[in-house]
Amino acid sequence: MEEIAEEECLRLLERNTLGRIAIVVSKQPQIFPVNYAMSGRIVVFRTSAGTKLFHAPEAKVAFEIDGYEPLTGVCLSVMLQGVAHDATVSYDDVSWAARAASPEPVAPGAKPYLVAIQPTRVTGRRFRSQR
Amino acid sequence: MEEIAEEECLRLLERNTLGRIAIVVSKQPQIFPVNYAMSGRIVVFRTSAGTKLFHAPEAKVAFEIDGYEPLTGVCLSVMLQGVAHDATVSYDDVSWAARAASPEPVAPGAKPYLVAIQPTRVTGRRFRSQR
Repeated sequence: MEEIAEEECLRLLERNTLGRIAIVVSKQPQIFPVNYAMSGRIVVFRTSAGTKLFHAPEAKVAFEIDGYEPLTGVCLSVMLQGVAHDATVSYDDVSWAARAASPEPVAPGAKPYLVAIQPTRVTGRRFRSQR
Repeated sequence: MEEIAEEECLRLLERNTLGRIAIVVSKQPQIFPVNYAMSGRIVVFRTSAGTKLFHAPEAKVAFEIDGYEPLTGVCLSVMLQGVAHDATVSYDDVSWAARAASPEPVAPGAKPYLVAIQPTRVTGRRFRSQR
């Protein structure tokens, strides 16, 4: 099991577009897949007026990507821990940075809100499959 | 966006072996990929003495799988919310059920502990990619 340095974690995050956000709703964690884009170290995704918009902003969240390369048997995952912000119209630095990204949701429906995750910690792991 | 009924969610969970668990550590959610197996409605995975073993048992957790079928453009995800138990040696019904499953971790290292997630809610969503 090899730890992946933050710099490479960020490169891996930049190369992908589908991740999962974990948010806590009444002490119960929930996980949702989202299409995202990066703006520097900030994860950005679009959403509608639902669970993610109501519970993510100003709360601690986690964001994760993982992958498996069948030809080499290499498995890896990257996790970003941080705080989410509603970046739709705010004038703070994180929101400005978030609006420079262009996440493209593949799910149907209007998603007028932009959520940014500002990381406090970015970690990753890589290993070769034992099967 | 189509909701997937619990019965079909459980069939989808049975067909897969890689999911992600979200646990809350000091109010900060974290997400970890795990290889799992099902025992009825119970998700079972093996782990070592680390974050998942220390923080999941008797806590609320979420478990998620997702997939994309390039030929049809169909995306789907299934989320199981529930409570985790250390099923390694306990004699309760959930632990007995968990020990009937055979999760096969692909990550290296000894994983002598068996964790079971007893669901309180199983939900799923399916849609056709808009791209």
